[in-house]
Amino acid sequence: MEYPSKLIEEAVAQVSKLPGIGKKTALRLVLHLVKEKEESTFALTEALNRLRAGIQFCKHCHNISDAEVCSICTSQKRDRSTVCVVENTNDVMAIENTSQYRGLYHVLGGVISPMNGIGPGELKIESLLDRLNHGQSEVKELILALSPTMEGDTTSFYIHRRVKDMPVKVSVIARGIPVGGDLEYADEITLGRSIVARTLFN
Amino acid sequence: MEYPSKLIEEAVAQVSKLPGIGKKTALRLVLHLVKEKEESTFALTEALNRLRAGIQFCKHCHNISDAEVCSICTSQKRDRSTVCVVENTNDVMAIENTSQYRGLYHVLGGVISPMNGIGPGELKIESLLDRLNHGQSEVKELILALSPTMEGDTTSFYIHRRVKDMPVKVSVIARGIPVGGDLEYADEITLGRSIVARTLFN
Repeated sequence: MEYPSKLIEEAVAQVSKLPGIGKKTALRLVLHLVKEKEESTFALTEALNRLRAGIQFCKHCHNISDAEVCSICTSQKRDRSTVCVVENTNDVMAIENTSQYRGLYHVLGGVISPMNGIGPGELKIESLLDRLNHGQSEVKELILALSPTMEGDTTSFYIHRRVKDMPVKVSVIARGIPVGGDLEYADEITLGRSIVARTLFN
Repeated sequence: MEYPSKLIEEAVAQVSKLPGIGKKTALRLVLHLVKEKEESTFALTEALNRLRAGIQFCKHCHNISDAEVCSICTSQKRDRSTVCVVENTNDVMAIENTSQYRGLYHVLGGVISPMNGIGPGELKIESLLDRLNHGQSEVKELILALSPTMEGDTTSFYIHRRVKDMPVKVSVIARGIPVGGDLEYADEITLGRSIVARTLFN
């Protein structure tokens, strides 16, 4: 595609590096910014610059934070005996939105994926073990809430093996038919697991 | 939704102002930037700032340009007797991509839309008339290439009325069944028009 301006071309090249945004969408976004007032572009770029320069990660759970320790880890209302292990910040937000969990988190920053060159060393697994090994550790249960994929399962197995001699219970979030889901369209593995892992009707 | 950081919240608020980007997509993009190197965010914001501060509009055709007069208006290879009237830069790029048009353009900056408070005064219509009225105007044909909507048609009628006493031919791009389109799925108005405006088989 030929662009009417070098500046447009460079902006499109940068915007289209974002995930899920191709050249056409990038062009649409860029032309929108050109059409709008200058201030709206500057407000956008300043917010992004401020974010990238100022973002911090909690030194305990590695979640995104405004301070050295995040608001969940500092909160007095949270149950300090449970730690939920997740891949990334999105997962923390998703679980927080359910209002069903009052414990702490531990953000690994991904899952073990040899195909992408990500081994246990690239993740915050040692830091999780440190939290559990720590002299006055109050953690009694570790909930593994990783993706139900090959990589997620591998990571869960790895963590389970590493903590199995520690005095901590390890659980995994339930797999089964999604609420509102249709049995007919569920894959066999999920349906099979949901039968094996059936719970008492209450 | 609760965000783990004020910085994230502000960035999401800004990104979700872009057209077609909701809060969820904005969050995904923002978390992607946080995950990547700082430099990629700064490269993005700098390209956008440079674009917005440096962008110019051609003083003849009002298309986006790197200079006072755009590369199409200055090109010696273009046919100066034809001017294609379009809504915006996207349309110029789309027509340029067809390689079927070698004339000049005139970018109106929108179409007449009383619902959105856009009258002829908000568009570059007077500037188009100036181009035609100009002493040594070489323009012999005006091609109206506006959207086939109520607003586009209104704008075409308005321009046609304003130029009808000038020595310039006015044409409209062909409406009909898209190439590769299926008759069965064409709407009746398009199909009706394509029968009325049929051309000789060649």
